[in-house]
Amino acid sequence: MLSSELERFINEDIGEWDDSSTIVPDVDAVASVITEEDCVIAGLSEACQILRHFGLEAEPLYNEGENVLTGVVVLFIRGNARLILQAERLVLNFLSKMSGISTLTRECMMRVSRTSGNVRVACTRKTTPGFRVFEKKAVFLGGGDTHRFNLSDAVLIKDNHIKILGLADCLRRAKLQTSFTKKIEVEVENLDQMLEAAEIGVDIIMFDNMKPFDIKHGVELLAERGIREKLILEASGGISLENIEDYASTGVDVISMGFLTKNAHWTNLKLDIKKKSKV
Amino acid sequence: MLSSELERFINEDIGEWDDSSTIVPDVDAVASVITEEDCVIAGLSEACQILRHFGLEAEPLYNEGENVLTGVVVLFIRGNARLILQAERLVLNFLSKMSGISTLTRECMMRVSRTSGNVRVACTRKTTPGFRVFEKKAVFLGGGDTHRFNLSDAVLIKDNHIKILGLADCLRRAKLQTSFTKKIEVEVENLDQMLEAAEIGVDIIMFDNMKPFDIKHGVELLAERGIREKLILEASGGISLENIEDYASTGVDVISMGFLTKNAHWTNLKLDIKKKSKV
Amino acid sequence: MLSSELERFINEDIGEWDDSSTIVPDVDAVASVITEEDCVIAGLSEACQILRHFGLEAEPLYNEGENVLTGVVVLFIRGNARLILQAERLVLNFLSKMSGISTLTRECMMRVSRTSGNVRVACTRKTTPGFRVFEKKAVFLGGGDTHRFNLSDAVLIKDNHIKILGLADCLRRAKLQTSFTKKIEVEVENLDQMLEAAEIGVDIIMFDNMKPFDIKHGVELLAERGIREKLILEASGGISLENIEDYASTGVDVISMGFLTKNAHWTNLKLDIKKKSKV
Amino acid sequence: MLSSELERFINEDIGEWDDSSTIVPDVDAVASVITEEDCVIAGLSEACQILRHFGLEAEPLYNEGENVLTGVVVLFIRGNARLILQAERLVLNFLSKMSGISTLTRECMMRVSRTSGNVRVACTRKTTPGFRVFEKKAVFLGGGDTHRFNLSDAVLIKDNHIKILGLADCLRRAKLQTSFTKKIEVEVENLDQMLEAAEIGVDIIMFDNMKPFDIKHGVELLAERGIREKLILEASGGISLENIEDYASTGVDVISMGFLTKNAHWTNLKLDIKKKSKV
Amino acid sequence: MLSSELERFINEDIGEWDDSSTIVPDVDAVASVITEEDCVIAGLSEACQILRHFGLEAEPLYNEGENVLTGVVVLFIRGNARLILQAERLVLNFLSKMSGISTLTRECMMRVSRTSGNVRVACTRKTTPGFRVFEKKAVFLGGGDTHRFNLSDAVLIKDNHIKILGLADCLRRAKLQTSFTKKIEVEVENLDQMLEAAEIGVDIIMFDNMKPFDIKHGVELLAERGIREKLILEASGGISLENIEDYASTGVDVISMGFLTKNAHWTNLKLDIKKKSKV
Amino acid sequence: MLSSELERFINEDIGEWDDSSTIVPDVDAVASVITEEDCVIAGLSEACQILRHFGLEAEPLYNEGENVLTGVVVLFIRGNARLILQAERLVLNFLSKMSGISTLTRECMMRVSRTSGNVRVACTRKTTPGFRVFEKKAVFLGGGDTHRFNLSDAVLIKDNHIKILGLADCLRRAKLQTSFTKKIEVEVENLDQMLEAAEIGVDIIMFDNMKPFDIKHGVELLAERGIREKLILEASGGISLENIEDYASTGVDVISMGFLTKNAHWTNLKLDIKKKSKV
Repeated sequence: MLSSELERFINEDIGEWDDSSTIVPDVDAVASVITEEDCVIAGLSEACQILRHFGLEAEPLYNEGENVLTGVVVLFIRGNARLILQAERLVLNFLSKMSGISTLTRECMMRVSRTSGNVRVACTRKTTPGFRVFEKKAVFLGGGDTHRFNLSDAVLIKDNHIKILGLADCLRRAKLQTSFTKKIEVEVENLDQMLEAAEIGVDIIMFDNMKPFDIKHGVELLAERGIREKLILEASGGISLENIEDYASTGVDVISMGFLTKNAHWTNLKLDIKKKSKV
Repeated sequence: MLSSELERFINEDIGEWDDSSTIVPDVDAVASVITEEDCVIAGLSEACQILRHFGLEAEPLYNEGENVLTGVVVLFIRGNARLILQAERLVLNFLSKMSGISTLTRECMMRVSRTSGNVRVACTRKTTPGFRVFEKKAVFLGGGDTHRFNLSDAVLIKDNHIKILGLADCLRRAKLQTSFTKKIEVEVENLDQMLEAAEIGVDIIMFDNMKPFDIKHGVELLAERGIREKLILEASGGISLENIEDYASTGVDVISMGFLTKNAHWTNLKLDIKKKSKV
Repeated sequence: MLSSELERFINEDIGEWDDSSTIVPDVDAVASVITEEDCVIAGLSEACQILRHFGLEAEPLYNEGENVLTGVVVLFIRGNARLILQAERLVLNFLSKMSGISTLTRECMMRVSRTSGNVRVACTRKTTPGFRVFEKKAVFLGGGDTHRFNLSDAVLIKDNHIKILGLADCLRRAKLQTSFTKKIEVEVENLDQMLEAAEIGVDIIMFDNMKPFDIKHGVELLAERGIREKLILEASGGISLENIEDYASTGVDVISMGFLTKNAHWTNLKLDIKKKSKV
Repeated sequence: MLSSELERFINEDIGEWDDSSTIVPDVDAVASVITEEDCVIAGLSEACQILRHFGLEAEPLYNEGENVLTGVVVLFIRGNARLILQAERLVLNFLSKMSGISTLTRECMMRVSRTSGNVRVACTRKTTPGFRVFEKKAVFLGGGDTHRFNLSDAVLIKDNHIKILGLADCLRRAKLQTSFTKKIEVEVENLDQMLEAAEIGVDIIMFDNMKPFDIKHGVELLAERGIREKLILEASGGISLENIEDYASTGVDVISMGFLTKNAHWTNLKLDIKKKSKV
Repeated sequence: MLSSELERFINEDIGEWDDSSTIVPDVDAVASVITEEDCVIAGLSEACQILRHFGLEAEPLYNEGENVLTGVVVLFIRGNARLILQAERLVLNFLSKMSGISTLTRECMMRVSRTSGNVRVACTRKTTPGFRVFEKKAVFLGGGDTHRFNLSDAVLIKDNHIKILGLADCLRRAKLQTSFTKKIEVEVENLDQMLEAAEIGVDIIMFDNMKPFDIKHGVELLAERGIREKLILEASGGISLENIEDYASTGVDVISMGFLTKNAHWTNLKLDIKKKSKV
Repeated sequence: MLSSELERFINEDIGEWDDSSTIVPDVDAVASVITEEDCVIAGLSEACQILRHFGLEAEPLYNEGENVLTGVVVLFIRGNARLILQAERLVLNFLSKMSGISTLTRECMMRVSRTSGNVRVACTRKTTPGFRVFEKKAVFLGGGDTHRFNLSDAVLIKDNHIKILGLADCLRRAKLQTSFTKKIEVEVENLDQMLEAAEIGVDIIMFDNMKPFDIKHGVELLAERGIREKLILEASGGISLENIEDYASTGVDVISMGFLTKNAHWTNLKLDIKKKSKV
């Protein structure tokens, strides 16, 4: 996290004149962040960066991405009580939001692994504006794949591109104009498009909003033609905890889900403070 | 939205060199944003600001905060096809995320209104870092109350403050040091604390994580002592769609819920583009 | 002070290439900031933050808000001579400007206390663009009330709002649309408006540009009607050191004065440097 | 004014959620900014930039730097009432603060012109952090000289430099290391230093905190030695409206005064709004 | 170019108070930017954005990337003379710097095309800090490949990575941890490393600082083993105009050169202004 | 370097998610930056600031501006291997770019010193947008003069100003409106203009694009008229390593060259890393 970004986040939560803090005297305190439900913990490094920016000592007790049970201390804090109270909400927001996403990602991974050990679960660009890098990182910590961070990361030719230019023209132009360092992916809506893309040659084919049955059929078709291995295959569109196993069993390499970032609930966590005892 | 903020959001989604866009030629197009489920639409003014920043024409077809059915065009766009494709994801992210929150807020309001016409439903500071103002605005558009934007907005004495200083000392200091323009609120965990706070004098009392039965009893106690009318009473902690009516019937003035921003799913919306026909 | 803000201030005073500093060799030095007139000292924490940003040691010898006599060392500095010379002007500008405001605020407080012990002296939003938080803090350190930091801090219905909407309509809308966490204040120009506002119900009434005699009459009227205690009363408009006692004796709770920030002179302070003796 | 700076100023005054504005409906209005005392008007171009940023029409009725009488409309505004109310305070703060400085500068210029037609009146670096360029511009509009904007603008060897290095060494190093495009100025405290500086050769000599009588003597000494014409001579330190004529008559070329920015009061101005009549 | 970036560039060249411009009155003028040597013109869109930011009309007469002869007008400007003079240097710096790179890239492309029609010429991350996107764009306009914009663009395992982890371990970790959307490239220093990388499987192999003879041998080896077609091959290290053809004839797909951005001279261009004639 | 600027540079080179670094484990390492050609080393303080920002230890082994031979370690680094790899490119870009300019400047200085010991070699405003301060600093470290940093640094009346206003009018306005702290320079294209400028009185005359023979004649003319000593004379336009001695022998005080920043190649440097041995 850039320090300018960090300051922006802190500023958002504190505002111009925090009266609540001015009432708290300079007392030393210790505080613990405690889980209130089982989760895959994420956001600890961000939490520590925030706390240290306030001049507080912060000691994470778990590695990010670890499974943590309810009622466990994940982060221990030491320092000025007023500053702990100022940092509290932002620290909890980072941990809760990110752990929620990591936990849901892990859950999806486990469902998938029952069916197929090698399928990756990826997120999408459906993320909260301004918070993408943290949501993607939470997916990564949960065991998922970050997919593209932005439009510059790889070329993804989507339905709306094809409506404007046609598939063949999109691919011709992409190959001509794009750096050799980038992969080219095409979103297809049916098996004709899939075959057209595979014949012209692409790195990745995404089955967009297609039924598992059709996707499976597509994968077989590519295998028959001997081009399955040259391609990475991705299923996307409307995939959730309910149907993820159906997609995992189609033979694709990757399942991508807006669901991971759009439907993840926040993990419940609390911060307990107490005045430092004098011994 | 400040233009620096707008640029940050756009930059996050486009990155340094958008190959996908360089393949699209300069063609005029029109596009529609269409709901894929019933919702309270929000984020239209942000969507328009984004689109206009790209030099596109944007025409909202609903007022923000209106109930909208599935399959309806909420926003009409005209301009360069490449630019529409560049703006698409950010526009949809704003609309989906904000409408999801507005819709959930409206739902909560309706549940409450069955029980009590005058109870406000408010959100909290449990918001995605960097996106608070938009989440609060979505709550407002859904009919909810924005509550505090940050620590400077009003003085809220919470459990952790009380652990450090004690309730009486917190209030004494708050009254001395806080501007007369701000309200003072206290979070109480039981009726003893409630009475103590009411006697010292505060503007707002929040029942934190207390059962509806106990809250109701607290409200009655205050009424008996003739001080109910001087206070704004707020219930908070663990309130969701399931139990909101129980809290609404306790006699409090406000129900505040992290649930509104933490559990809202994204509203499904899509953008359809087509090349402008030449006539 | 955010570090981005600090850098902006430093950058303003140093520019792109400080030739004056390049001529100074790497010598250790000590320096003292000394008062040249009696004052209430303010800005020490900002001065220290600036100096430490330059890698200098800074030791304040007074608490902010203390009365300090002429000729006294308020801040002691140790470190590289060149860096002390680079930080000098910005440090003095903060201290002089803020102490001037604190000193004038304290003077107003003392005048008021002769008449009435409980009247608060508050500043307004008449502050130098970009420097408000420091001017408000100086008022606070002088013993004053910071009043609203910005338009979002509380609802203040002013003469120009009333000209557009009428008083009753303003209040009706404010109560409907404003968060329960905020106070509502109305600026009145005569006793009819005062009574209208009091009857509809507001948190604060400001007597704007009214004579002490009329304000006093207004306060009595409210007392007669038994609603004085429900309201905070504020006098504002054209109040200065000359007439502040007249306003203090009207019975209002608060006197607000653009005068505090608009008319405060800068406190004279100087920085004396000397090469560190080698012992 | 950079647009990032403009946004920062606006943000400071509006905050995250302006309830006062949300109560005002979309009505067309006109408004006038009116002087409440005689002044040299300044800040009109900044005021217009702010208003236009809000989408309002702004028409200045005077040139910046003109003398304006009491009760005169200096700026006419047209547009949405709510936006006018949001911009009001920032516009008035710019105009009042800057016009106050321009007016005091003009007053000083007039005093000086009684004694000597060619003496320039300059300000210093004693300006409000973050607002220097506007304070300097106000001095310029009042007829004064802006002097150095920052440490990089010219080399000014001050008492504290001399304490560290000695005068001769300072000058030797300055001539060696400074770009030929910059002037070199020395601050002297007595006539010995003056002669030393003049002999080594500098562009500007500043008499710092010296009495008019001594300065006059110094100017004569330089004339006797035939080096008066090669130098620009500046008087500085403790100069105010009271004693400015004494300094003007010493024969120096420039009088510089922290007084211009430290002691200028704000010019009183008001904004009157009314709903646009429908004709 | 983000408007914040644009403002930073303009600010760098103008500073806080441009005296040179204050001397120029408000006169209408026209100006032409004229080539002083043959070049591939680049930077026209940036130049136009700068000029329009100043409120000037800007009309490019060529497409970016076109070959332009000496003495030709490439950009026509209309508007206030003072503003043209303020924008002049920044506009010329963009055009000269970018066109220099485009021109050198085109020259390299032509040399390569004599030998092999399909070899791409790419730049590297050896770019001026803060100006990379414009230097890469200039390479693109000259017909080159932009290669990675930053460390996140693709995984490139370099000599220093291998020194720490060993090649096999680098690749194992990269495949495990990197998103499927990214390519993996390895920098090899000899043919053993090349074979090791090819066997483990990568997308791109870069021959780093190897002689053309050895590279050619490597390409043949891969062909013999039937894995040439699965790989993109890149030559890099010490390649310049002198030896580029030797590398082009080795059979690689890409030649990457720090030379393009490190050794490009600036294209000479001038801006001619004249007062608008009154007709 | 401001920390916001530093973060921008780092961000440009790392991007949002550096996969290359995630593959490197937490190992301690040491690294050396080694010259690959003789140079005047520059950029060491920037390199150290970057490395320390990453939490690495950085120890420069030379002073900036020293002549350094090929194959020499100029900077020693200690710390986490992953972080060293992340900082590597940016550190090398700063050192290579800046040292290239310092080296070329030193070379020009040596050529000039053969002819005339007192002539300064200066750069211009022909610098990479956003990187000027570092390019100017490199010139300074090479022994050159930084000339104007921006339009506000001194008044420079150029050909295009004269085309609009005429020389006499430019000078009259400049003297009236410019602060006495700034020098006034005029660019002349022939000896008539030179004499006109000298008669009106300026601080610096620049011979722009004039032949050495003509410049020499101009210097003699000024000497004959006894005004040579009152002026600083500068030659500019088309000066390079080839012809610099011809200009140095004309008798001017300063030679300014866009060549220093436009034609400097990057100094070759490399970074060698190795895992820290365990002893």
